[in-house]
Amino acid sequence: MPLMKSWVDSANAPDTDFPLNNLPYGSFLTGDGEAHCGVAIGDAILDVTALEEDGLLAVADQDEVLIFGDWTEFMALGPKVWARFRTDVTALLAEDAPDPVTLAAYMVPQIGTRMVLPFEVREYTDFYSSKHHAFNVGSMFRGPENALPPNWLHMPIGYNGRASSVVVSGTDVIRPNGQIKGPDDDVPRFGPSRRFDIELEIGAVVGQPSSGPISVAQAFENIFGYVLLNDWSARDIQAWEYQPLGPFQSKATATTIGPWIVPAAALEPFRASTPERENVLLPYLREPEPMLYDIALEVGLTPDGGTETIVSRTNYREMYYSAAQQLAHHTVSGCPMRVGDLLGSGTISGPDPHQRGSLLELSWGGKEPFGIEGGTRSFVEDGDTLTLRGAALGDGYRVGFGSCVGTVRPAVKLPEE
Amino acid sequence: MPLMKSWVDSANAPDTDFPLNNLPYGSFLTGDGEAHCGVAIGDAILDVTALEEDGLLAVADQDEVLIFGDWTEFMALGPKVWARFRTDVTALLAEDAPDPVTLAAYMVPQIGTRMVLPFEVREYTDFYSSKHHAFNVGSMFRGPENALPPNWLHMPIGYNGRASSVVVSGTDVIRPNGQIKGPDDDVPRFGPSRRFDIELEIGAVVGQPSSGPISVAQAFENIFGYVLLNDWSARDIQAWEYQPLGPFQSKATATTIGPWIVPAAALEPFRASTPERENVLLPYLREPEPMLYDIALEVGLTPDGGTETIVSRTNYREMYYSAAQQLAHHTVSGCPMRVGDLLGSGTISGPDPHQRGSLLELSWGGKEPFGIEGGTRSFVEDGDTLTLRGAALGDGYRVGFGSCVGTVRPAVKLPEE
Repeated sequence: MPLMKSWVDSANAPDTDFPLNNLPYGSFLTGDGEAHCGVAIGDAILDVTALEEDGLLAVADQDEVLIFGDWTEFMALGPKVWARFRTDVTALLAEDAPDPVTLAAYMVPQIGTRMVLPFEVREYTDFYSSKHHAFNVGSMFRGPENALPPNWLHMPIGYNGRASSVVVSGTDVIRPNGQIKGPDDDVPRFGPSRRFDIELEIGAVVGQPSSGPISVAQAFENIFGYVLLNDWSARDIQAWEYQPLGPFQSKATATTIGPWIVPAAALEPFRASTPERENVLLPYLREPEPMLYDIALEVGLTPDGGTETIVSRTNYREMYYSAAQQLAHHTVSGCPMRVGDLLGSGTISGPDPHQRGSLLELSWGGKEPFGIEGGTRSFVEDGDTLTLRGAALGDGYRVGFGSCVGTVRPAVKLPEE
Repeated sequence: MPLMKSWVDSANAPDTDFPLNNLPYGSFLTGDGEAHCGVAIGDAILDVTALEEDGLLAVADQDEVLIFGDWTEFMALGPKVWARFRTDVTALLAEDAPDPVTLAAYMVPQIGTRMVLPFEVREYTDFYSSKHHAFNVGSMFRGPENALPPNWLHMPIGYNGRASSVVVSGTDVIRPNGQIKGPDDDVPRFGPSRRFDIELEIGAVVGQPSSGPISVAQAFENIFGYVLLNDWSARDIQAWEYQPLGPFQSKATATTIGPWIVPAAALEPFRASTPERENVLLPYLREPEPMLYDIALEVGLTPDGGTETIVSRTNYREMYYSAAQQLAHHTVSGCPMRVGDLLGSGTISGPDPHQRGSLLELSWGGKEPFGIEGGTRSFVEDGDTLTLRGAALGDGYRVGFGSCVGTVRPAVKLPEE
């Protein structure tokens, strides 16, 4: 598919994340401080809440679907409504649209506009489905022979995260306190994490509910779209707490998501296959067709007042399990899923050292600090800004995710200290 | 404190769970199928939604707090409103109440009335804070020398559960399917859990939000009340999936909560201390005063068409960490908590074999099936009804939780099989 041309000039530039081919969904604050739903186009946002209010855009046959500035209710209406809306917005923004002059009054510049969470994150699950990441982390802790847990090649391993800690790009992240016990310490101490880290992930947004086990094919249909996702992780807190029930407070400080939900429909031309497998998967996990996507990803690290260094470049197609497989597995026990559930892919690492999606891997557990402009890093330092970016690369255009940004601020002192 | 007398005769019986001293909060369906908020008194329910609608009971200065038949909005109003409401309802139901005749029209019999979830479970966390339980389970898997994980005596270990799977007492539970791999199997198979289990717990209901670390004292104040909680667990699925990120699908089928939230205020006379500790806790986890409760608990198992056997009797005061300590720990990383968050205590086991709160422990991993009326059990069988009960025992009265009931139905066949 070539670039689809829009009357919005900036949407036709080859380097924009938001050509007409994309049309991702976000939520922004208007001048009155009200949340509105918006669709990104070039360097602008189309205010679709205002368009709906003014009767210029109808969502299904219902009124006021977008009135709360949140896409949850829209998602609940289902794939047919998603498809029709996308067709309607495409027509409004296409080169040959009937009335650009009217539409122009509903455009807001992206620069200077504050974004908010585009949906209510109902529950948040984080997976662990990049083989290179699992192998790297396992090698550090258990040696390369025992790197992958025995279950890993048979199912997408995941854990329930904390939905209340999900924030939108641009929100500062406060370094967590917690219990930390080094290998030579007799007892744990309490204090700020010294091994605070990021995880480069893609999050899948569940747009349709299910009340029992669903197939991989159905799971694929139930996914509304995808966001960039940074699962902030305190490695020292994690090391001490995670046995036997998994990560808890080490992952509960914040998870930052990008402001734009890229619709699954926009990613259709970029489908990719999961890799060849060592084991035959059980039938409930088999994909009837390719359900991953080819999405180039990168991580930038900018010290306080400094210059950005791109510290990692990888691709979503490195995943061993697709989001559809993860969602199908999630339901197999009968677990109900709801509109607004968010599924993190797990850290996405490629085979090469510069393709690692966490600082833990990039600095090999802190033993091999890596260079950045004007310094080195093992883990995140106060004042550092971490930026994730991603885009599916078409012929002369890109379907991008915008950026997913968070700056780390110093830990708070607790009154008890 | 002695029994407080009510004009509702059944509330003065020494064996009722619901004397005037209790007044727990629940939600029920009216004859019209509408959810209303109710307060249990003796064998009846006082319809407080109808009382509010008719202007006979005011919740703070706001109208229609109880109109949706859910206690979430009420909880959000905070401890002063909770206290005033409790005082007002106590006055309406006391022996010397001014107008029992009018009130009698707002009474619904408990028998035959269908209960629904009394609040929207925002997120669900399950802890692992009974030392006897942790020791029993650890002994089975790692031997008694290594039974307790090294972190266990230093912090309340917990994991995020799945809020969407929380159901109210009386809801059938469908035996889950999942991946299972026995110690002698080369590869996992897919099928119904053969080691389906219960966990006897008390759940703490968070009634006030917090946005950063809070003290144990503040955490105690933020807890609205307590419910019985059965965390259904598929032990064979759990054994294969839980390393390294903790339980996931093994705990996602269902968690049943009792229909009645017993207010923290009703449990005040029954406060109890956590046990003496092997280690000095870090300051952020220290309790300024006793924050556990003395609550007698039991588990009944009734085979399909058979007679109930009480298979376990224990007490909430066996916990090593209180709910206030769990909640304070939950917030230490900065994790935001919201109204309606539910915190499971973890399986409550006492030191004696008949005090064990799971079948896994009662049958010692299935190796020592235990006797019930007309048979034996290692794990739950299809058609079994499991009933949890609990009450704080006063002098001539009890502050009870009602019962928390679930019947297990056969697994579904998946289309892929």
